[in-house]
Amino acid sequence: MLKVAIIGASGYTGAQLVDLVHRHPAMELAGTFVSQSSADADKPISAIHGQYAHLSQYTLTPISDDTLITLAESMDLVFLATPHEASHDWMPTLSKGKAKVLDLSGAFRIKNTEVFEQFYGFEHTATECLDKAVYGLAEWYASDIAAASIVAVPGCYPTASLSALKPLAENNLLDSAVRPVINAVSGVSGAGRKAALANSFCEVSLQAYGVLGHRHTPEIEAWLGTGVIFTPHLGNFKRGILATITVKLKPGVTAEQLNGVYQNAYTGKPLVRLRDSFPKLDDVVNTPFVDLYWKLDETSGYAVITSAIDNTLKGAASQAMQCANLISGLPVSEGLVAQ
Amino acid sequence: MLKVAIIGASGYTGAQLVDLVHRHPAMELAGTFVSQSSADADKPISAIHGQYAHLSQYTLTPISDDTLITLAESMDLVFLATPHEASHDWMPTLSKGKAKVLDLSGAFRIKNTEVFEQFYGFEHTATECLDKAVYGLAEWYASDIAAASIVAVPGCYPTASLSALKPLAENNLLDSAVRPVINAVSGVSGAGRKAALANSFCEVSLQAYGVLGHRHTPEIEAWLGTGVIFTPHLGNFKRGILATITVKLKPGVTAEQLNGVYQNAYTGKPLVRLRDSFPKLDDVVNTPFVDLYWKLDETSGYAVITSAIDNTLKGAASQAMQCANLISGLPVSEGLVAQ
Amino acid sequence: MLKVAIIGASGYTGAQLVDLVHRHPAMELAGTFVSQSSADADKPISAIHGQYAHLSQYTLTPISDDTLITLAESMDLVFLATPHEASHDWMPTLSKGKAKVLDLSGAFRIKNTEVFEQFYGFEHTATECLDKAVYGLAEWYASDIAAASIVAVPGCYPTASLSALKPLAENNLLDSAVRPVINAVSGVSGAGRKAALANSFCEVSLQAYGVLGHRHTPEIEAWLGTGVIFTPHLGNFKRGILATITVKLKPGVTAEQLNGVYQNAYTGKPLVRLRDSFPKLDDVVNTPFVDLYWKLDETSGYAVITSAIDNTLKGAASQAMQCANLISGLPVSEGLVAQ
Amino acid sequence: MLKVAIIGASGYTGAQLVDLVHRHPAMELAGTFVSQSSADADKPISAIHGQYAHLSQYTLTPISDDTLITLAESMDLVFLATPHEASHDWMPTLSKGKAKVLDLSGAFRIKNTEVFEQFYGFEHTATECLDKAVYGLAEWYASDIAAASIVAVPGCYPTASLSALKPLAENNLLDSAVRPVINAVSGVSGAGRKAALANSFCEVSLQAYGVLGHRHTPEIEAWLGTGVIFTPHLGNFKRGILATITVKLKPGVTAEQLNGVYQNAYTGKPLVRLRDSFPKLDDVVNTPFVDLYWKLDETSGYAVITSAIDNTLKGAASQAMQCANLISGLPVSEGLVAQ
Repeated sequence: MLKVAIIGASGYTGAQLVDLVHRHPAMELAGTFVSQSSADADKPISAIHGQYAHLSQYTLTPISDDTLITLAESMDLVFLATPHEASHDWMPTLSKGKAKVLDLSGAFRIKNTEVFEQFYGFEHTATECLDKAVYGLAEWYASDIAAASIVAVPGCYPTASLSALKPLAENNLLDSAVRPVINAVSGVSGAGRKAALANSFCEVSLQAYGVLGHRHTPEIEAWLGTGVIFTPHLGNFKRGILATITVKLKPGVTAEQLNGVYQNAYTGKPLVRLRDSFPKLDDVVNTPFVDLYWKLDETSGYAVITSAIDNTLKGAASQAMQCANLISGLPVSEGLVAQ
Repeated sequence: MLKVAIIGASGYTGAQLVDLVHRHPAMELAGTFVSQSSADADKPISAIHGQYAHLSQYTLTPISDDTLITLAESMDLVFLATPHEASHDWMPTLSKGKAKVLDLSGAFRIKNTEVFEQFYGFEHTATECLDKAVYGLAEWYASDIAAASIVAVPGCYPTASLSALKPLAENNLLDSAVRPVINAVSGVSGAGRKAALANSFCEVSLQAYGVLGHRHTPEIEAWLGTGVIFTPHLGNFKRGILATITVKLKPGVTAEQLNGVYQNAYTGKPLVRLRDSFPKLDDVVNTPFVDLYWKLDETSGYAVITSAIDNTLKGAASQAMQCANLISGLPVSEGLVAQ
Repeated sequence: MLKVAIIGASGYTGAQLVDLVHRHPAMELAGTFVSQSSADADKPISAIHGQYAHLSQYTLTPISDDTLITLAESMDLVFLATPHEASHDWMPTLSKGKAKVLDLSGAFRIKNTEVFEQFYGFEHTATECLDKAVYGLAEWYASDIAAASIVAVPGCYPTASLSALKPLAENNLLDSAVRPVINAVSGVSGAGRKAALANSFCEVSLQAYGVLGHRHTPEIEAWLGTGVIFTPHLGNFKRGILATITVKLKPGVTAEQLNGVYQNAYTGKPLVRLRDSFPKLDDVVNTPFVDLYWKLDETSGYAVITSAIDNTLKGAASQAMQCANLISGLPVSEGLVAQ
Repeated sequence: MLKVAIIGASGYTGAQLVDLVHRHPAMELAGTFVSQSSADADKPISAIHGQYAHLSQYTLTPISDDTLITLAESMDLVFLATPHEASHDWMPTLSKGKAKVLDLSGAFRIKNTEVFEQFYGFEHTATECLDKAVYGLAEWYASDIAAASIVAVPGCYPTASLSALKPLAENNLLDSAVRPVINAVSGVSGAGRKAALANSFCEVSLQAYGVLGHRHTPEIEAWLGTGVIFTPHLGNFKRGILATITVKLKPGVTAEQLNGVYQNAYTGKPLVRLRDSFPKLDDVVNTPFVDLYWKLDETSGYAVITSAIDNTLKGAASQAMQCANLISGLPVSEGLVAQ
């Protein structure tokens, strides 16, 4: 059994990870931690997440520097479901031991450190860790992940977007004169578990935000290799992301060719479902899948692709688990779907 | 034109009042105020309530003691959509002038001051105002309201509950050995406009709260004249209250008799709709109506009544407006429904 | 008082019109009709739309050819909230009398009759009426509407889309090499009041539909004068449309210039609200407004505009009322917003 | 591996069972069937339930009388997720072979055949099967279930209600002069997968139905042994039931005594969670648990208990699986929760 610790276990993503590790047949959940300033310190998970009322055995231990060192040396896997700055600050210590570290924050997803100052508001000084970190888009970088000691688990919007766009970019089908337009709607859990007027029930209503300036834009562009126009929206639901992506393809690309590109990219990938109609958001909520469907207008060359994920699973916790499986030599979907 | 001021105009109820007064043919909105500590001070209403984006002329002025005195002397009507303690503290000053005061807080709804210590957490010292205050259940105390200088606008749950139960109590139909059971579900706006984890979108899900100890219980009991078991619930919607009320009637009461009691109580009351089937919550949302329907099992003597209101309208702002109409000698539904 | 009839008064849009006409100070609702095959024939509106439980005076009369002739001669205004084919078939008769006709279907919105065969599935033979019909986008064709006898009230998506895009097209700001991308999410009421598995509560979840083939695409393109990529979505809410529109502007267009274009287009238009941040859907639900906000990335030349409306009001009934006001020489917002 | 067939696999409950059996470590899903008249016949499950898009191996076979005989002889377990009448008609054939039958309809839940004529609208003639059927309330009749050949899986509301009330009734704590009042709100999936105006998205809004006459009332009363007032409501959510139950206890019952009764009833029952606060509906949605919490006012003797379940799981499919485990000699929670 792999020994596993989760740091930042009180949030929506962290609690989801607790459940995933608890149910994983090859993992033992050896520690669940929160920051020392957390109001949830020393509470059991079951007290703050009613859905996990039966998991009373896991208590949220406040973490210290000493704990980090101990975890690095004693665990096989450490999940970091922590704020960007915390991941940035703790990674140099955590990555010194035998533990493989899976970071769900944005702190190690992009190699260009200027992005952190501009979009994340802090100076990135953990350069060595950043160099070693592998981008955990599981279907695209599986062999790198398998060999990594640090995995930067992708953001939710980038996971939805890149799953749809990388087959086109890798096969050189995109018309470079027209930027892909990504419109995505996310459930409110993407904003995290916290008191904020903007997330209060009566204030939530479908709305664009972060227009032409969201921090996931450089992440998508870095791993796609081209500029995009990305507009995120807050939706009136708890979980899930639906991304609708409009692209212009190179002249002459056919629908058959487009289908082939997706089939080639994802055949044998158990957590990508190529659908035969446009997916509903609920098709993927509470699942680890990404669902894809597309349509091309051969006359104009424009195509529309939709990509649906659960933001706390494929967009965070279950993709982290895919990476943990890969890094541990297990099947990528172990503990996530029944065989 | 009646000159009107609204104190506490930044919350959901206060903003709703702004809109009602703005649209009222016989009223002029002469001032909109917030407490001096409000983060919304000096902003226009339109900046914080997108629904009222066209009402940019109304700015949220921070209130002072001097303002209170001026308002008391210069206004015809003052609405208080403020916390209980603020209403309690300001009423002695406000009620000294010519202005009639309509208080939407709980501070003047109950004559027994012990209730305030036990359920509201403050000592009630505005005894004279409390004595003068009239309970603003508009269909039941219209003549008292018309003659009042201070009106305590009822709570949302009491409005829904008493509208259903008073016809039974006034006609002495209730079996005194069995308490009426009131189960009610309220939209989240009932909790007010504020940042709180419990009201954040992802945390809201149908749930009982305040069980056997909610402050609206003594208010219902005081104006009904009998004990009840009241269980409020938070529902996953923004506005509205549906109360389902189970009562045991005295032996021999017939369905026809029950129908007659409701007809007698509400014929000629334009804001009560006696329905011919059980109302949906959406039937009343964004309306000033209370909808009632009931069914009696003559064999067992048990009856079920449901009562539906919009908590921010009939449960607060539009009932306050009914009171303002009555106190001003206008038709009770003026400015609320088209003739 | 203008005498008004509504045909197709049982649907969501028709019932909304009943309420608008009922509340209009210069109109008298003289007749409410449904088709002869309707299951709602001879019922009062109040029996099928609980929200209008107080409007028991309006009964749904089954319509006949004779009724059409009578209405044409006796009414000042007739609203058609009927299926496309019914509007198409009845218009020649209806338009023969003195009544001005406001058609909320798609049957008279586009001059090119081929569109009807391809996108609506019927052959258009009411050529004379089609020639006379004026497109009722109220802020853009006010003088034509004022002089019209037949108004084709725009579709919901075209209203949201054209309100955002026409200022750009009319001022020649769009880069003609890149199509505007319109992503819009509509509430389920847009699908009409009917039993259908796809609209049943458990089946509704955010989803794209009509991709690269929706009938509102040619309507938008006809009145914009340029091709677009339009992707509608069904959202998990009852009312409202939020359209997010991505455009590439001509080189050198500045943010200031863009602001000026919107100000010029909509200053003095009481039902368009130029916002100072991206609107929420709930800002416009149950209102007759269209809310607009935009942002330009001057470096890339891409801009994002969002446009929010209530699909049953500005997207149907209240825009029809704007047209009725214009055609009757009344202020455009009469009966829709308080002055 | 136990060979399992599911009849009625196209509905919400049936599809849920497909997923549960697919994931069960000791079961093999050998057949998925629908009625011959089903519009879904011969489609894969994945085509009609997007959530199970990865389960393309299971096709919905139309069932015939011959199939029933074959299943009875060749299967270990047959789940019937069929209408009441279909279960009634097919059970005599199905129960003749070696297969144990788990019926999720209401056809075998009550011994008194008069109930079926009054509440279900058909005459019950499968008397022998009715005699043999065991009521599948898993925590209360485990040994009977283990020995049964036919299990009548309880209704959703009765499961929620009886889980809360049986500890009180079995310990003789209820004041017999006052009926328990059960107010419950169910998600729309309880109405099944079908096109119906009443279940269409725009029509759904919190509302009481079946007042003083719902068919689950006699089921609750039969297994509780006392009369109740049960008022079901439709809620604006897809899954889950929250039942709020008000009871009057015998004089002198203490809170400590009440706690003890629940502890005694449910200690060692892995799918009942005795909570330490009132549960939210979302705590149980997508889980097989029933969550209980209660509060007693010792002065008045009234207590309020809330009970939360997922109607398609503990209220149907997962309780059927509990019964299937018991009848097969497996741990009751096998395949439902991680150990």
